[in-house]
Amino acid sequence: MKLAMVDEKLVPMESLDPIYCDRGLYFGDGVYEVLRSYNGKIFALDEHMERFAASMAAIRITGIDISVVRRRVVQAFEAAGLANAKVYFHVTRGSAPRNHSWAPGMKPNFFLTISEAPDSSEEKARGIAVCTHPDWRWKRCDIKSLNLLPNVLARQDAADRGCDEAILVDEAGLITEGAGSAFFAIIDDALHTAPLAANILPSITRHFMVKAATNLGMGIEEKCLTPAEAAAADELFIAVTTKDVVPVVKFDGTPIGQGVPGRWVKALMTEFQKFTV
Amino acid sequence: MKLAMVDEKLVPMESLDPIYCDRGLYFGDGVYEVLRSYNGKIFALDEHMERFAASMAAIRITGIDISVVRRRVVQAFEAAGLANAKVYFHVTRGSAPRNHSWAPGMKPNFFLTISEAPDSSEEKARGIAVCTHPDWRWKRCDIKSLNLLPNVLARQDAADRGCDEAILVDEAGLITEGAGSAFFAIIDDALHTAPLAANILPSITRHFMVKAATNLGMGIEEKCLTPAEAAAADELFIAVTTKDVVPVVKFDGTPIGQGVPGRWVKALMTEFQKFTV
Repeated sequence: MKLAMVDEKLVPMESLDPIYCDRGLYFGDGVYEVLRSYNGKIFALDEHMERFAASMAAIRITGIDISVVRRRVVQAFEAAGLANAKVYFHVTRGSAPRNHSWAPGMKPNFFLTISEAPDSSEEKARGIAVCTHPDWRWKRCDIKSLNLLPNVLARQDAADRGCDEAILVDEAGLITEGAGSAFFAIIDDALHTAPLAANILPSITRHFMVKAATNLGMGIEEKCLTPAEAAAADELFIAVTTKDVVPVVKFDGTPIGQGVPGRWVKALMTEFQKFTV
Repeated sequence: MKLAMVDEKLVPMESLDPIYCDRGLYFGDGVYEVLRSYNGKIFALDEHMERFAASMAAIRITGIDISVVRRRVVQAFEAAGLANAKVYFHVTRGSAPRNHSWAPGMKPNFFLTISEAPDSSEEKARGIAVCTHPDWRWKRCDIKSLNLLPNVLARQDAADRGCDEAILVDEAGLITEGAGSAFFAIIDDALHTAPLAANILPSITRHFMVKAATNLGMGIEEKCLTPAEAAAADELFIAVTTKDVVPVVKFDGTPIGQGVPGRWVKALMTEFQKFTV
């Protein structure tokens, strides 16, 4: 007899809600996006949809059209009626008995949540502390997949050390990005960030940061820094969809610059706001 | 207003079954085991429970005692009444609004399925074909976590190429293990397999294979092979809980030995059976 057990409860396998056999749960076999709105308008919807389509294609999820995903996101956003909303959604390969390889023609599962974007004005004004953690992630971080356990462990380690973000360092001793953010340094009036490769998520906020820096006449250096180089930078910040620019004022215990958000970071925040209106 | 969307259906967030907010689904934030019984007796229950406790500790899941997990596994096994059962179970950190770091005191979610172990006698008699795939997994493969997307992609690639398993090859060009199995070669009457390290799952069947080989008077070489060395081996096989020993008769298209299961593999299969009675 085929049985399932949910906590203490034994049930026939057939009676289970298919969500229990979601390949997202068995394998993390899915991809996701997070986007937000500013003042009633979804920011960079095209860019997020384009990246999401690329993530689905990279792990070969078919059976759901990107136009359907987009329509659902817009529908949920309109229904929620939130001016500054945070939208999370994922698509998994679908529900099936556990087997690494998949059957053709699976029906993907779509899931979305929408809520008020958290107010990050205080941490943006004050700046945050970050600390480094080994980059334990897989070799295809360019895919925004549901395999996020290394990110979770790094972020929790940071929290335990009183930090708001973990900055990941690869085996070569180079910074890749944050556990849930892109990482930037400003050195001699130039913006430094890791080049886009298989070990980096193609961050959409990163794209706008490079644009903002260019508008401000800053130089752009696409190279990975060591933790020592980052700790010695003039300014540091992270970029993440839900909060855009967040200044970093302490790196592995070392105060950055004057220990408060610097002039370039402030200028980038102002410049970024122009994209959101 | 906080909303969720499941496929086409918009619902208030509060009405969602907590399974939708399982951190296993958001992050793969959980660990699992697969075990089986032979003729009414669970094989290596102590070893699986010990490894599971180690996996939980490694990702810092607390709030469920290993004795509770063990009791549930035994209870489900007895209820199912299957002589040759396959048992899958996982524990995730629990259900909560999506946030990388976790709140203290979370209640873990337990899930188990039990069904008839698939009959693998034919593939064991015939032997299987395998092919190599880059090892894209994270840096802590010693933890049996739910982050299995690289394993899924490798196994599907193998299936697409008419193979039953993918053999993972790291950036140094060395074989680590199979996408869902341990990998072994027999060269000059000695058993070769990768040494246990952070890039290898401490396979329980591997443990019994080493014991079986020792009983047979074979040498044991714990070293990683290159694909070329594997293709030139006298015999190859994989080991996996659900099927124990499965001979490999083709490696990246190259027939191994006489293209049929060899004498050492057959001897190991017989020797392994002694552990299961």
